[in-house]
Amino acid sequence: MDFDTIAAISTPMGEGAIAIVRISGPDAFMIADKLFKSINNKKISTALTHTIHYGHIVDPANNEVVEEVMVSVMKGPKTFTKEDVVEINCHGGIASVNRLLQLLVTYGARLAEPGEFTKRAFLNGRIDLSQAEAVMDLIRAKTDRAMNVALGQMEGRLSKLIKRLRQEILETLAQVEVNIDYPEYDDVEEMTHLMMLNKSKNVKIEIEKLLQTSQQGKILREGLSTVIVGRPNVGKSSLLNTLVQENKAIVTDIPGTTRDVIEEYVNIRGVPLKLVDTAGIRETEDIVERIGVEKSRQVLKEADLILLVLNYADELTNEDINLFKAVEGMDYIVIVNKTDLPQKIDMDMVGKLANHQKMVTTSLLEDNGVNQLEEAISTLFFEGAIEASDMTYVSNTRHIALLNQSLQSINEAIIGVEMGTPIDIVQIDLTRTWELLGEIIGDSVHESLIDQLFSQFCLGK
Amino acid sequence: MDFDTIAAISTPMGEGAIAIVRISGPDAFMIADKLFKSINNKKISTALTHTIHYGHIVDPANNEVVEEVMVSVMKGPKTFTKEDVVEINCHGGIASVNRLLQLLVTYGARLAEPGEFTKRAFLNGRIDLSQAEAVMDLIRAKTDRAMNVALGQMEGRLSKLIKRLRQEILETLAQVEVNIDYPEYDDVEEMTHLMMLNKSKNVKIEIEKLLQTSQQGKILREGLSTVIVGRPNVGKSSLLNTLVQENKAIVTDIPGTTRDVIEEYVNIRGVPLKLVDTAGIRETEDIVERIGVEKSRQVLKEADLILLVLNYADELTNEDINLFKAVEGMDYIVIVNKTDLPQKIDMDMVGKLANHQKMVTTSLLEDNGVNQLEEAISTLFFEGAIEASDMTYVSNTRHIALLNQSLQSINEAIIGVEMGTPIDIVQIDLTRTWELLGEIIGDSVHESLIDQLFSQFCLGK
Repeated sequence: MDFDTIAAISTPMGEGAIAIVRISGPDAFMIADKLFKSINNKKISTALTHTIHYGHIVDPANNEVVEEVMVSVMKGPKTFTKEDVVEINCHGGIASVNRLLQLLVTYGARLAEPGEFTKRAFLNGRIDLSQAEAVMDLIRAKTDRAMNVALGQMEGRLSKLIKRLRQEILETLAQVEVNIDYPEYDDVEEMTHLMMLNKSKNVKIEIEKLLQTSQQGKILREGLSTVIVGRPNVGKSSLLNTLVQENKAIVTDIPGTTRDVIEEYVNIRGVPLKLVDTAGIRETEDIVERIGVEKSRQVLKEADLILLVLNYADELTNEDINLFKAVEGMDYIVIVNKTDLPQKIDMDMVGKLANHQKMVTTSLLEDNGVNQLEEAISTLFFEGAIEASDMTYVSNTRHIALLNQSLQSINEAIIGVEMGTPIDIVQIDLTRTWELLGEIIGDSVHESLIDQLFSQFCLGK
Repeated sequence: MDFDTIAAISTPMGEGAIAIVRISGPDAFMIADKLFKSINNKKISTALTHTIHYGHIVDPANNEVVEEVMVSVMKGPKTFTKEDVVEINCHGGIASVNRLLQLLVTYGARLAEPGEFTKRAFLNGRIDLSQAEAVMDLIRAKTDRAMNVALGQMEGRLSKLIKRLRQEILETLAQVEVNIDYPEYDDVEEMTHLMMLNKSKNVKIEIEKLLQTSQQGKILREGLSTVIVGRPNVGKSSLLNTLVQENKAIVTDIPGTTRDVIEEYVNIRGVPLKLVDTAGIRETEDIVERIGVEKSRQVLKEADLILLVLNYADELTNEDINLFKAVEGMDYIVIVNKTDLPQKIDMDMVGKLANHQKMVTTSLLEDNGVNQLEEAISTLFFEGAIEASDMTYVSNTRHIALLNQSLQSINEAIIGVEMGTPIDIVQIDLTRTWELLGEIIGDSVHESLIDQLFSQFCLGK
């Protein structure tokens, strides 16, 4: 394909030690040559691939030095985009990076759209769509586990599986054609039906297996939406603080990270907990009171996990019992807090109310029971799950939707065969399954979808 | 000097396309070798300098892939720190960059302190202190002009000048010694005095010249602290909006820039205007009313520039006249706004009150007079100033303070000579001047000062 040359700032904006401006396309070297003065008069266009050059960016209009830079030269096709790529590392001031980008545009580059570099990697065939999507997942990953899922997908683990399934369907379809065209035996129709049934059932099992990982995959990718509920003064904000403080690894072990933005994410043994309405809890100590009963029911409904906090040193009230009713049928963990005080709660009653849901007793004041709570959270969603690194998780909503459609389609094929539907009708369902699976890796997707997908990327990627 | 090996994330935190983790020190290659698996089994330690290698970061503990990376290998001394440097470019997810940094620390690197890379460049003699300080100024530069000042300083323009002055002083001191030790002529003392006087006067003139640039230099570096005052409803928030909208170049031509942080900076023809209390103006339309008369006088006093807005369509009031009194003796520009309405203001009276200060008539509603206002702002501070790129500006408060002390010290030398003070006393003043100038470029500074200076840098620089 023929593309123009694009440029963008590829590092996050802000005061940083290094900023990178990336250029990709047929004119990348030519444009860089116009602006870059190497310390030893080397030209970018004649430099060896994968080499680094020290020098200055000089504005040709007035010979003013714009930046002191290191320029990386990478010749296509062994690059991120498969095109010629130049990366200019500079000191990272907003004014100078800005001026550099303007110069690049003046001398022939176009400002890249969000995700356009990755889009080119896809359009130029270096990676497929699910791998491209994994690139963005990796950037947004909140925990090591989520990162592993994204990495696996980026390395093409999901793609390989999908390709194998599609190959199986394709071979089945081809075999059907052969059988129809060359009916050497009398029982060819029966044989064909049987083969289709077996193959389809295989494919179905594989799709189901993948879909089984989707809940965990989605949690790893997007975080487990968690709500803390309980009467006032049972220790909701202590719980929140404990979870945030003991697991602040996501955020605060790197100085300079903006805490506000991500502090609602807490990493519980690799499970990213997205604490919903933490501000509400901190402010009023009571989510129900603050946002009204109707609204809070809605918040509860949308949660993946509810932490229901009770007071060990107080008798159960109607309010407590109503909370149990409100969370019925959902994933919740009962936390009986304040075991440092004399018991007043009826634990048998709590046990009955909890009805086989996980239950933990804690004294957040004395830091007791927190380990058990974290254990409970992590096993609730990853009970018996194999470590993420050994497994192909499906985590992307688009993939999950397509897999569900594929499952439906392959089911129809199976039912068709079992009911003795004519083969050419069953063939349609199989072909449809093949197409749907293809959309996951981008083999059969519309341009508009591609545009929309990549527009969600960050700039410079 | 012998240093350990340091590592840090050198790009701003946040979701970005690329993150860089930088390693510098004697073990940089060895540590990188432990973690990096090149696609073609190349070792970092045996790679050619200034080359780029594709591969993966693999955790040696469990052979898990942590990131897909490009690794830049740069052998000292031709590097930023003059040490061996490895830069790992990765996809920029917080979780993976974090884990990568943890691995580096596990395998022998130490987390770098803020500014430590630049500090090593200084301690290893690649740049002097004023150049190191310019690196940070460049990152923080708000406009092209400010950037040019920082760049000039980084390239060593100020250093050269300071070194030349110090050399002059040193030669004078040496000549004095020679004259004293070998008094071949009778009039040696008179000659020595004359030479010291001439040389000292030269140095004084150069220091004064530099100090003359300091007001402009400081404005370029830190922004012109600007306050908009005027009665309610004269158009203060319109003025603010016009200035921000027409000059938003600093901030908003890069999508993704956090507007909140820098939006108070407005770039007026290369002069960075730091609009003080803009929130106050937006909220109440009246800074005086909002923050109380006493406090607002304080704000006015600390301003570098005051924009005093009057209403063309209204008669002058006592309040207007009081404002003129409040800004007496300061740099201000009178803006008579609303020329789209019939005139009621007495322009002669305004002229008298303004008393030779700049005056502009505007209709912000019809966008008239804004150019003239911007012209007035830029010439008020840069009247006759040569373009920043051709000049050595002093912009750093530390440098200005040292230059002022040097000036005082050289003045004492001059007075001493003129009063016939014994030469060895004058020598002390000259030596002191030489030392003070040396502190600017870091030739004679305390370790604690160096630590303190570099700690103001951003992490990873």
